[in-house]
Amino acid sequence: MATWATLDCSSAQLAQLLGPNATGAADFICSQFAVVSSKLSDTAYAVDTTYLLFSAYLVFSMQLGFAMLCAGSVRAKNTMNIMLTNVLDAATGGLFYYLFGFAFAFGGPSNGFIGRHFFGLKEIPSDTFDYSHFLYQWAFAIAAAGITSGSIAERTQFVAYLIYSSFLTGFVYPVVSHWFWSTDGWASAANTQNLLFGSGVIDFAGSGVVHMVGGIAGLWGAFIEGPRIGRFDHSGRSVALRGHSATLVVLGTFLLWFGWYGFNPGSFTKILSPYGTGSMSYYGQWSAVGRTAVTTTLAGCTAALTTLFGKRILSGHWNVTDVCNGLLGGFAAITGGCSVVEPWAAIVCGFVAAIVLISCNKLAEKVKYDDPLEAAQLHGGCGAWGIIFTALFATKKYVNEVYPGKADRPYGLFMGGGGKMLGAHLLQIVVIIGWVSATMGPLFFVLHKLKLLRISAEDEMAGMDLTRHGGFAYAYHDDEDLQKPATIQLRKVEPNSSSTPTSV
Amino acid sequence: MATWATLDCSSAQLAQLLGPNATGAADFICSQFAVVSSKLSDTAYAVDTTYLLFSAYLVFSMQLGFAMLCAGSVRAKNTMNIMLTNVLDAATGGLFYYLFGFAFAFGGPSNGFIGRHFFGLKEIPSDTFDYSHFLYQWAFAIAAAGITSGSIAERTQFVAYLIYSSFLTGFVYPVVSHWFWSTDGWASAANTQNLLFGSGVIDFAGSGVVHMVGGIAGLWGAFIEGPRIGRFDHSGRSVALRGHSATLVVLGTFLLWFGWYGFNPGSFTKILSPYGTGSMSYYGQWSAVGRTAVTTTLAGCTAALTTLFGKRILSGHWNVTDVCNGLLGGFAAITGGCSVVEPWAAIVCGFVAAIVLISCNKLAEKVKYDDPLEAAQLHGGCGAWGIIFTALFATKKYVNEVYPGKADRPYGLFMGGGGKMLGAHLLQIVVIIGWVSATMGPLFFVLHKLKLLRISAEDEMAGMDLTRHGGFAYAYHDDEDLQKPATIQLRKVEPNSSSTPTSV
Amino acid sequence: MATWATLDCSSAQLAQLLGPNATGAADFICSQFAVVSSKLSDTAYAVDTTYLLFSAYLVFSMQLGFAMLCAGSVRAKNTMNIMLTNVLDAATGGLFYYLFGFAFAFGGPSNGFIGRHFFGLKEIPSDTFDYSHFLYQWAFAIAAAGITSGSIAERTQFVAYLIYSSFLTGFVYPVVSHWFWSTDGWASAANTQNLLFGSGVIDFAGSGVVHMVGGIAGLWGAFIEGPRIGRFDHSGRSVALRGHSATLVVLGTFLLWFGWYGFNPGSFTKILSPYGTGSMSYYGQWSAVGRTAVTTTLAGCTAALTTLFGKRILSGHWNVTDVCNGLLGGFAAITGGCSVVEPWAAIVCGFVAAIVLISCNKLAEKVKYDDPLEAAQLHGGCGAWGIIFTALFATKKYVNEVYPGKADRPYGLFMGGGGKMLGAHLLQIVVIIGWVSATMGPLFFVLHKLKLLRISAEDEMAGMDLTRHGGFAYAYHDDEDLQKPATIQLRKVEPNSSSTPTSV
Repeated sequence: MATWATLDCSSAQLAQLLGPNATGAADFICSQFAVVSSKLSDTAYAVDTTYLLFSAYLVFSMQLGFAMLCAGSVRAKNTMNIMLTNVLDAATGGLFYYLFGFAFAFGGPSNGFIGRHFFGLKEIPSDTFDYSHFLYQWAFAIAAAGITSGSIAERTQFVAYLIYSSFLTGFVYPVVSHWFWSTDGWASAANTQNLLFGSGVIDFAGSGVVHMVGGIAGLWGAFIEGPRIGRFDHSGRSVALRGHSATLVVLGTFLLWFGWYGFNPGSFTKILSPYGTGSMSYYGQWSAVGRTAVTTTLAGCTAALTTLFGKRILSGHWNVTDVCNGLLGGFAAITGGCSVVEPWAAIVCGFVAAIVLISCNKLAEKVKYDDPLEAAQLHGGCGAWGIIFTALFATKKYVNEVYPGKADRPYGLFMGGGGKMLGAHLLQIVVIIGWVSATMGPLFFVLHKLKLLRISAEDEMAGMDLTRHGGFAYAYHDDEDLQKPATIQLRKVEPNSSSTPTSV
Repeated sequence: MATWATLDCSSAQLAQLLGPNATGAADFICSQFAVVSSKLSDTAYAVDTTYLLFSAYLVFSMQLGFAMLCAGSVRAKNTMNIMLTNVLDAATGGLFYYLFGFAFAFGGPSNGFIGRHFFGLKEIPSDTFDYSHFLYQWAFAIAAAGITSGSIAERTQFVAYLIYSSFLTGFVYPVVSHWFWSTDGWASAANTQNLLFGSGVIDFAGSGVVHMVGGIAGLWGAFIEGPRIGRFDHSGRSVALRGHSATLVVLGTFLLWFGWYGFNPGSFTKILSPYGTGSMSYYGQWSAVGRTAVTTTLAGCTAALTTLFGKRILSGHWNVTDVCNGLLGGFAAITGGCSVVEPWAAIVCGFVAAIVLISCNKLAEKVKYDDPLEAAQLHGGCGAWGIIFTALFATKKYVNEVYPGKADRPYGLFMGGGGKMLGAHLLQIVVIIGWVSATMGPLFFVLHKLKLLRISAEDEMAGMDLTRHGGFAYAYHDDEDLQKPATIQLRKVEPNSSSTPTSV
Repeated sequence: MATWATLDCSSAQLAQLLGPNATGAADFICSQFAVVSSKLSDTAYAVDTTYLLFSAYLVFSMQLGFAMLCAGSVRAKNTMNIMLTNVLDAATGGLFYYLFGFAFAFGGPSNGFIGRHFFGLKEIPSDTFDYSHFLYQWAFAIAAAGITSGSIAERTQFVAYLIYSSFLTGFVYPVVSHWFWSTDGWASAANTQNLLFGSGVIDFAGSGVVHMVGGIAGLWGAFIEGPRIGRFDHSGRSVALRGHSATLVVLGTFLLWFGWYGFNPGSFTKILSPYGTGSMSYYGQWSAVGRTAVTTTLAGCTAALTTLFGKRILSGHWNVTDVCNGLLGGFAAITGGCSVVEPWAAIVCGFVAAIVLISCNKLAEKVKYDDPLEAAQLHGGCGAWGIIFTALFATKKYVNEVYPGKADRPYGLFMGGGGKMLGAHLLQIVVIIGWVSATMGPLFFVLHKLKLLRISAEDEMAGMDLTRHGGFAYAYHDDEDLQKPATIQLRKVEPNSSSTPTSV
């Protein structure tokens, strides 16, 4: 029996087979198949869009996760400031990514450096991109900006924040995502023309594109600003400036975990695509999507446990906020390779990620680098490890399934796939550090020189909520005095001010 | 070649085409197509139900968003009270919407005023409504009640709340949703008999049906109760009674944003429905769903940024809770027209919504109207603007795709679609104000006359949690005294009560 | 006309029907149908996996709900401790369920007692299980562990927690789920060989398998440890040790509600499966899924309202945390029968669940049993009621639709289905109590004897966060002293320590 791989009913062919005078019957039958084909195609669009949109909503929920994680990790006096930056990452990101960002990132056909279509969503929807893709990519873009705002928390002028956030979401990040994710990108593993080192970079959900970009940007900001007042004492010893709420840290971490299921498995953007045939007909992209959720989970779990015991040995107690950061480090690391590695390899990934994070934090202390969210260490450090990890552990089978259409492409070094992928991935690390340093470094430096970057020492001591954002974030004490924003804080200095009737 | 638009294999026709003695073959082939058709139909039900149910879950999560937003916006002493109302909105709403509400809203065939089938989900599922539709609409109904509870927060008797909430969810709101959403509704754009002014009202996800209804109900409640003690001082000057936690406000706002992706795009209730043909085969309701998510996002983002700079100019600081309210105002406004306007128009919508909200708040202060959540201003004011906005910016193409089957229907005035839609929409505003005022106004008035509406001044000063709900919501100070509910508050008046060993 | 129930185009049969020389045409046509069949099958995998994965994500979000509910229900001084256990439930659960748990639970073919395939996800994916099933079941496993940690909160050594949690997630729970859910399980209603009492146990989403297991385990832990210091005063009177944040309790409850839509409706694991035919073609598993969401909602709502009025009568005030617990009790009860009962029966279920919970709490006070989260009462008591409820109210139609393939199987006693199901269900209760007592009881007892179970009285008074977890969870007071972890708590005993300039 002849085999037909796709639904391609040829009326002419069928007419010939049916014999003389069968043209009408063949037309009839093939037109029925054409209707079936069209309905199957509609169904696939609906299924894939449902999958992508709900994934986008999950990724969006990470912004809430960031807001809570950041809020809990700063001191109470700067809570409103950091949360406002998180809300605005989403809001300014929405406008700028609509106007420019998406176009720079995915506006093909284009050159390998930057896209040039889809400004203001013109030409959308097309047969390659629908509105849902924009929404999904917007949720990614604002995540990158969120990472950076953590690094420079508690001491940055709000105007500086507005400037760098727009620049990062609207230009710096989109360009990087073009390079590594667009089908035109010079280093993309999905490049349809030619692949960097014959391999291209497999940065599936963005250990480099999102996490390193956000982390390196934060590194420059925090480095140029210098540490918060009191972070290192007169003798140079590190003093922990603990966040004001471990509950918010845990809330934020769990929300990020929840949202990461949109971030990593969602990066397939489609779920209806078969891989297997015959007795393996149950096997398809839906399996790869599930496997990606599993690798993500295992990397995070392992990193959390490694951090738990590691910090127990180092610091003598079981620390929940450290475990949360370890967990997130595991996620940041697995993000790049989540779709192309085996579950057991994800355990290796998470284990090393926890060690990388602990080491980066040690190093940061040593060089007196202050990052209230450990964002540069976590997203930059673990992100970089994730890029290398992928080049070591990517399996042949999964690489070819997830990035199909190129025979004999390189895969992980430890899996027998040679060193070409590792070469491409190391270049990715260098290029991201270079690009972000060349764009965000000067920006932060100019803001610094213009005295627009850091707030005054007095404001820093008083807290930004009081000086810039209209008051303190909390009022658990219900004395009416608290209702007069400008005066409370002064009032409260009197010794017996807390002994009012309703105070608790 | 003949064209067959649908899968309608006619055995008789095929037999004729195949020639003599082909009846058996034609039967065989057509019965195979019948199986295919049935499987495609099953698939569509599964896809659409998956889409609708997860949208319903998102809308439900808005109830959590409301709870956190409300909690953060009131003073600590009334936290348990307001949260209890939010939990009960969902719970009483569940029972009453099951018993009556859904029947009043969607129980067709019926007259244009009120539905009359599906009481207690009888006759469900049918070929028009499945259980998932009930769940989705229930989540909408409880949102309306949630809006109202914000307006009358911090001073309303719990019994009054139980009464109005049941009445609103079980009767007032369902009737309005029948008018504008049911296929029998006298003003519905989906009315299959005749359209109001030849247009009907396009209130896609409920700027009027949900937001104005909740907001106007709250307006009457708050107006009849009068402002909270201390909200306007002796000289009549406005005094901000700030909420006790900006963190909860941001948490609630982000959750509402997250849930709004169920509210607006979810209102299509189906995603598997093609619009395009031929070279546009990628275009269908899935694209419209994605576009709706994008318009929603852009309206909120723009409103947030407009509020940020607007309030900076007016009040001198960058205020996160105002930005949150502005954002929500943008969402409330775009809700009505989200599916039928271009993304750029959503930016206009959000910009004006922010100005409407700021103006309504100014007006409220001037007339000494006190609404702790700005709910009447936000949901009523911005909701009304959204209704008008839709009648100005709805595009011909989208109106016909989303509300198909009527040729030459009116669309937005500014898009060249004439003024008929605007007429219908202005009538909607009048009718909603009239209906809600005629039902909720007398109810609140009678409760007021029966002394069931407002709590006593002493209770208001002490806070409702202590007097009605068994204690204060928080106990951060861990002295054991705090564990004896009735006595703590009194104990705390002594000057040195806070100096216990474990106190922080 | 002949009827073909499935898509099974037989080339030979068609060739015969088409007449002589039609083999080629028949091959052609049937191969086209084969492609259609394969594409429909792919679509079903994609739809069902999308459904299952997003359900899994929702179930995972319950872990966040547990964390917030637990945090809010304990005193501030133990917040970090309880949250750390919730994070680690997920993390250790991830590793152990990957290595052993899933294999013990679902590793068929096997005996009726314990599974023996799929260790480390070997042989996954297969035609019965994909990665998504593992993820879904993992999220269930960690929920069971989360329940237990609530019972023994505020007084348990962290090492003890690590031991019992691993044992519960990795062995005790998986074995129970094998018995009642695996197709090999000796008491499973899905057993393909023979059914216990001709019925098997219908514990659809785990009133017994998850809730009773977690609750009974907690019962033993809390019983062996004894009550917290101060929980019962010298005269033996019960003293409420109130949790430190009602806001977190409400947040956690709503998140659990949200997640329960993954837990209960998600337990179908597939949504694309038709039940009806002909004029009922709109009726399928998608309807059953929606109905399950509705029964879940109604049971919770009714339980919440019953608790509201019940506790108002008993205690004199409207208590939000009690309403939250009542709501969760309703959910725990409906979980077992959610898919096989009518919506009206769910109202009965919730009503009784609230009374069961109130009674269990009364009983617990009487016998001086202290369970900070009421976990044993809620998950154990209401879970047991749910098991009985199902055996009384399961309808014939739904039982046969949800558990197809066995004619004349028993159903609910009150629905005319005889007492066999009730017999099987009562046995389930006995067996779960027996198994969990036989495994977890000795474990807790040995830990107790080894002095590994309970912390010292001094540590309990001081709080575990300070003594074990590096500091207090909150620092709302922003005096710099608070930044020096080790010394603050001591410093704070001085009377005037709170009168620093920035303190609020």
